[in-house]
Amino acid sequence: MSNKLIYLDHAATTKLDKNVLDEMMPYLTYKYGNASSLYSIGRESKQAVDNARKQVANILNCSPKEIYFTAGGSESDNLAIKGIAYSNRKKGNHIITSKIEHPAVLNTCRRLEKEGFEVTYLDVDNEGLILLEELKNAIKDNTILISIMFANNEIGTIQDIKAIGNIAKQKGIYFHTDAVQAIGNVRIDVQKLNIDALSMSAHKFYGPKGVGALYVKKGIMFDSVINGGHQENGKRAGTENVAGIVGLGKAIEMVYEDFDKYNMHLLNLRNKYIEDVEKRILYCRLNGHRTNRLPGNANFSFERIEGESLLLMLDIKGICASSGSACTSGSLEPSHVLTAIGLERKFAQGSLRITFGKENTVNDVDYVVESLVEIIERLRNMSQLHEK
Amino acid sequence: MSNKLIYLDHAATTKLDKNVLDEMMPYLTYKYGNASSLYSIGRESKQAVDNARKQVANILNCSPKEIYFTAGGSESDNLAIKGIAYSNRKKGNHIITSKIEHPAVLNTCRRLEKEGFEVTYLDVDNEGLILLEELKNAIKDNTILISIMFANNEIGTIQDIKAIGNIAKQKGIYFHTDAVQAIGNVRIDVQKLNIDALSMSAHKFYGPKGVGALYVKKGIMFDSVINGGHQENGKRAGTENVAGIVGLGKAIEMVYEDFDKYNMHLLNLRNKYIEDVEKRILYCRLNGHRTNRLPGNANFSFERIEGESLLLMLDIKGICASSGSACTSGSLEPSHVLTAIGLERKFAQGSLRITFGKENTVNDVDYVVESLVEIIERLRNMSQLHEK
Repeated sequence: MSNKLIYLDHAATTKLDKNVLDEMMPYLTYKYGNASSLYSIGRESKQAVDNARKQVANILNCSPKEIYFTAGGSESDNLAIKGIAYSNRKKGNHIITSKIEHPAVLNTCRRLEKEGFEVTYLDVDNEGLILLEELKNAIKDNTILISIMFANNEIGTIQDIKAIGNIAKQKGIYFHTDAVQAIGNVRIDVQKLNIDALSMSAHKFYGPKGVGALYVKKGIMFDSVINGGHQENGKRAGTENVAGIVGLGKAIEMVYEDFDKYNMHLLNLRNKYIEDVEKRILYCRLNGHRTNRLPGNANFSFERIEGESLLLMLDIKGICASSGSACTSGSLEPSHVLTAIGLERKFAQGSLRITFGKENTVNDVDYVVESLVEIIERLRNMSQLHEK
Repeated sequence: MSNKLIYLDHAATTKLDKNVLDEMMPYLTYKYGNASSLYSIGRESKQAVDNARKQVANILNCSPKEIYFTAGGSESDNLAIKGIAYSNRKKGNHIITSKIEHPAVLNTCRRLEKEGFEVTYLDVDNEGLILLEELKNAIKDNTILISIMFANNEIGTIQDIKAIGNIAKQKGIYFHTDAVQAIGNVRIDVQKLNIDALSMSAHKFYGPKGVGALYVKKGIMFDSVINGGHQENGKRAGTENVAGIVGLGKAIEMVYEDFDKYNMHLLNLRNKYIEDVEKRILYCRLNGHRTNRLPGNANFSFERIEGESLLLMLDIKGICASSGSACTSGSLEPSHVLTAIGLERKFAQGSLRITFGKENTVNDVDYVVESLVEIIERLRNMSQLHEK
């Protein structure tokens, strides 16, 4: 086992930024008041939560009152989709989403189908984009919600969110986007993009695990998913995770403060990686859109390679990467995203997602490419022997 | 404003224990892997989560497979009640609970009523105990679930959980208990008590905010509330809050390691406080059961006193206390718990909950009693003047 640790799986999670942790520490030590309590240290916690709400709102260009804190991206997706669906059922029971959504969206929609909602799962093209014409054609009189992810977690494809938002707006349908992978990597103005609801998760942008946020445009009715106390304006019960919320606020502020530099850094690493792999490894295929993709994401399929073996051998070299989304790893089924983009079976088994982050360097790219060249050659030789 | 801080609101939240935070720190810094990832730092996170699951199971005397991590007590209550209700709807649609439950239980039940479930809200006696005969009488052929809190958050009354568990077992009905206030303060063996589901929240026993756990007995079907990835055996989607979960595990282990000492410490402070208040302040009434109550809880009502004024003046003296549950503070409505125990109106407005914790001392008791004597005299004089 290598002592080296080259972390190239920032779409799965990121390392909590030291400055973010510093900001959280008072709330993990002496500022421990319950944000609902009326006395001094309670009010301090409340102020900290409100401050984080402002930090998120500033980035999205919305009002702090439109931000609701949750325990993460999955809960935010559930709250947006179920919340809007239940609350607007009288208007209609049809929801449109895509086949490449995160399980938090897909399984929420499947759950709603069991409860009598009707869901259209849009196809995507070979690069992972939904077709706007198909979206328009899918809209019916009883359509109440469109939920399309901002950027895909596996293949990195970024949808034409502005166009989708416009279609939804014209038809008077609510538009939710799972922006868990996009926040930090794309500038997002919910007003300009006509987004009605947006989900995010702090640990994807150097914040802590276990905290997320949901933007819901003022005036949109939505039910809560976790019933109980009055927290989050009655929309999400439970004692506020003050330290986590403070961390989310600081993390989103930081990642957008340095946005251009960070974006360029990721693009440089990602582009060099793609170029080097395509130059040095035969029978590979870049999955996802070549340009409309997350700056840090590169997803390759290698012919005649088994993804899990590849990951294990990379792990031995200290390289952390993914064969798909972390949420579906551990399962042997081919990824629903790679299936949806029509990947041939010979490619679907051997996909490798590399997602770069701020601490990665050009040396990391060289190291992972060298390692890949060596491992893929060995695995292909083995499978050749095996076939003989 | 006093520089002093005498924190006497441990039922609202507790200060994260230094040793618990130390245990969490690696997962807030270099051990940042996603617990679903296959490589080294992912597996480390997975092991940490599994270890916490064992720590919780050891305390409750159940299997680690029966423990599901959530974002807190409210989510655990929602997951238990909605989960069991939805999954067992074919067997029946009747749920029994009490009028003094936490809002996370009450509002979840109200939500289920809107969806066609039938809920019986049991009365309690003047000391806050449900009547076992009434419980038995409430059971019908379509009853699927009894949800009765272990100990009340406002008045501290501990129910006869063993008897309730037995009744449920005899009738073949599932029994859930909201043990958010009881964990750390009462020894709980889910097998001996015939508990089928139990909710807890880490920040009530010196663990971090934003993490909870739910015990559900093996074999009981329950739907998930947050749909998505495969985490928590498919019952609760979302990237694991590894640091928070590690903190919960360490915190529950620690609080039960020192249980007898801690319990005696709380009882000593609480009993002295009750004795001193009853000796020195006229026209007061202890709410809740005198002996079947949480060791750290003392809830008094003071005649002709407005709870909010009392809290504000205590706050000026650096004393943190509550007029009811933190979850309902900020609202001017009289507490549903005090209403349920039949408190006269002249008492219901002026109640004060003091909940002691491990860092409190006898000096704190003296200080709060002295302060109360002074403040209550002043407030009563003011209201007398006002009346004249």
